[in-house]
Amino acid sequence: MRRKTLMETLKEGLLPEALCKAAAEEGLDPERVAEEVVAGRAVFPLGLTRVVRRPCVIGGGTRVKVNANIGTSADYPDPNDEIRKLEAAVEAGADAVMDLSTGGDLRKVRTAIANRSPLPLGTVPIYEAAIRAQREKGSIVAMEEEEIFEVIEDHCASGVDFITVHCGVTMSVLEVLRANPRVAGIVSRGGAFMAGWMLHHERENPLYENFDRLLDVARRYEVTLSLGDGLRPGCVEDASDPAQLAELVVLGGLVRRCREAGVQCMVEGPGHVPLHQVEANVRIAKEVTGGAPFYVLGPLVTDVAAGHDHVAAAVGGAIAALAGADFLCYVTPREHLGLPTPEDVREGVIITRIAAHAADLARGVPGARRWDLEMSRARKALDWEAQLSLALDRKKAESLFRERQVEGETACTMCGDFCAMRFIARYLGSEETGTC
Amino acid sequence: MRRKTLMETLKEGLLPEALCKAAAEEGLDPERVAEEVVAGRAVFPLGLTRVVRRPCVIGGGTRVKVNANIGTSADYPDPNDEIRKLEAAVEAGADAVMDLSTGGDLRKVRTAIANRSPLPLGTVPIYEAAIRAQREKGSIVAMEEEEIFEVIEDHCASGVDFITVHCGVTMSVLEVLRANPRVAGIVSRGGAFMAGWMLHHERENPLYENFDRLLDVARRYEVTLSLGDGLRPGCVEDASDPAQLAELVVLGGLVRRCREAGVQCMVEGPGHVPLHQVEANVRIAKEVTGGAPFYVLGPLVTDVAAGHDHVAAAVGGAIAALAGADFLCYVTPREHLGLPTPEDVREGVIITRIAAHAADLARGVPGARRWDLEMSRARKALDWEAQLSLALDRKKAESLFRERQVEGETACTMCGDFCAMRFIARYLGSEETGTC
Repeated sequence: MRRKTLMETLKEGLLPEALCKAAAEEGLDPERVAEEVVAGRAVFPLGLTRVVRRPCVIGGGTRVKVNANIGTSADYPDPNDEIRKLEAAVEAGADAVMDLSTGGDLRKVRTAIANRSPLPLGTVPIYEAAIRAQREKGSIVAMEEEEIFEVIEDHCASGVDFITVHCGVTMSVLEVLRANPRVAGIVSRGGAFMAGWMLHHERENPLYENFDRLLDVARRYEVTLSLGDGLRPGCVEDASDPAQLAELVVLGGLVRRCREAGVQCMVEGPGHVPLHQVEANVRIAKEVTGGAPFYVLGPLVTDVAAGHDHVAAAVGGAIAALAGADFLCYVTPREHLGLPTPEDVREGVIITRIAAHAADLARGVPGARRWDLEMSRARKALDWEAQLSLALDRKKAESLFRERQVEGETACTMCGDFCAMRFIARYLGSEETGTC
Repeated sequence: MRRKTLMETLKEGLLPEALCKAAAEEGLDPERVAEEVVAGRAVFPLGLTRVVRRPCVIGGGTRVKVNANIGTSADYPDPNDEIRKLEAAVEAGADAVMDLSTGGDLRKVRTAIANRSPLPLGTVPIYEAAIRAQREKGSIVAMEEEEIFEVIEDHCASGVDFITVHCGVTMSVLEVLRANPRVAGIVSRGGAFMAGWMLHHERENPLYENFDRLLDVARRYEVTLSLGDGLRPGCVEDASDPAQLAELVVLGGLVRRCREAGVQCMVEGPGHVPLHQVEANVRIAKEVTGGAPFYVLGPLVTDVAAGHDHVAAAVGGAIAALAGADFLCYVTPREHLGLPTPEDVREGVIITRIAAHAADLARGVPGARRWDLEMSRARKALDWEAQLSLALDRKKAESLFRERQVEGETACTMCGDFCAMRFIARYLGSEETGTC
């Protein structure tokens, strides 16, 4: 008899302790959260093969989560660098990490991260399959279908909680792409590897064709599938184009198959999207996928912000999350320019958390409003210790404050004696004092 | 006979060269822009008493503009620091600056900035009136009505192009505030000084009561009035509250009086506004003010981002600008923590320009789309020199790129040999090559 998946267990009314704990930490009713997982509107990525100290629920009205992508490249293959990035991501408050390594000993890096990560860990197994083929046979397209599945199973068996699989890049979707040329073509690395393989071999996407096999692996290891958008737009000009939408329709169909199989899944989304199309993109994706958790990379609302792409992504991410996106993949300041450093990782997580929290506040997520309220009360009271403690990034706030502060000053150095709040308090009370 | 104001001149069909030039630089038809100024939906802040090398049109479908606030405080009174900030703002691409000095010799700082600024210059004269009263009579509320007008006239006569006047803080608006207490009370410095004065003296706002006198000064010097929102919300909890809206209604009435008097005006807006209320705030303000140019400070979409408030403001600013805001006042990373440094000013301008440009792109402002398109083509071609040249912040992009780049590598260090765009180009062409 097959083991029961989390979705099947929950359907029977059993509530695993880890899920109860994760729900309770967010001030949510575990049974309500369980219903969302059963309906496929939330996921709880927690594979069977590793202990995850801080698992979390994604979607279903929970707090918007933040993922940090780390991992080596050929130019920077040192696993120790990636451990430092993992630590930076955890310290900055990421909810999940993905190891996207493409350099050095991939298995070694992944295992090192898996062993040390208190957070759910995601990977993109096709990278390893492609890189192995490149190294061993001299070409990415030399990878064989069986090898792709071997790598997927190896990842699932060694501590991974969710995997990105580019199943939506089908032959018919590539036909739509051919008929509607793009400025930036394919920018998803996994999507590009898969499309290149398909076009070279003139064969259908093996992960699409053998989706049941993928479901079987996911079931056995309780690994959540993150249905990648291999055709996500790589520039604002390409956003919301026929190829992107054609792939989304395929992903919508695969979401249904995941649910029927009791496999948890989420759907990945853009990418680069101009400001006025962000909300529509999220709403359409939610509609087409029956409300599956939506995991966006950005979206970046302009292409010209290199060096500040984390901010371009925070703008898009906040709007996306308000419109219903559940999981924000961070972007670092070094996006489009190079492999991030630990400091870039920290900055990327912090800025993405600001976007996520702004959406939580607007969506009425439990606890979000209270945080801002406490900060505002501390600010009104000119209570600097409380303000710094309540800052989402205390380290940065404290450093900027101390750098300019003047001994004996109670207000900040912007207004000093002419602090509006201190001045007007003599004439108007506040909510707190009730003397208004 | 009174001199004709810009609005009156334009109404007669005369087009000043400076306006033609400013419109043409944006790729806009000067006559269309002139119509917008006549209708009061755009302003061209260009006082009579100084040469402004780079004046600009704000509103009326032009590019979203960015203002940088500079100025001394009691703790940092050195005028030279402010000149360095002016230079930083200009170099980073600000469209206007405001001198908000409250420390040292205020006239000296203002004159130094006016003499050196190639950009339109704004001030908040009530600061100087209040500070003088504090220094000379020991109390802000000791300032006299006549002194307020003297300072206003002095500013207008010495090179200022627009002034913020807190005319909307009326007795009846303060009654609304009393009846609906806030968490953060009044956080606008000018609003607080005015409200404190009114409550102390139990007298109506002199700038409201003598609005015709203000209009007369503005006419004589062709100074644009920026109708300040003295009751702008200072935390997300206070956003869109009765006091804020009551003041907005008053400002709407004053906009009509400005138009009747041929005086250019814009309207200032929040502040701190949660994500889901930003668009509504802008649309209501535009409606109530008959489409007057809307000048927002932020809005910050959360209160807990201290150290990164420029990002919280960029999120709100981008959404506000998409909804119709015309002029974004930057926020620096040091907001709520201290007086900004030149480096903070640079960062604030850059990040605010990203928000403004994202909105321009979405609003279809001429030229905005082409910029992103050129960047994306350069990115696709892995043309690094072009990418760095097209970056909104070349300095930062170049530094991040060079820091990690490896000799001889054509792709960036994130993907190296596994660059998706380079790989897929073998199998798919691109829009450019037409081989798709």
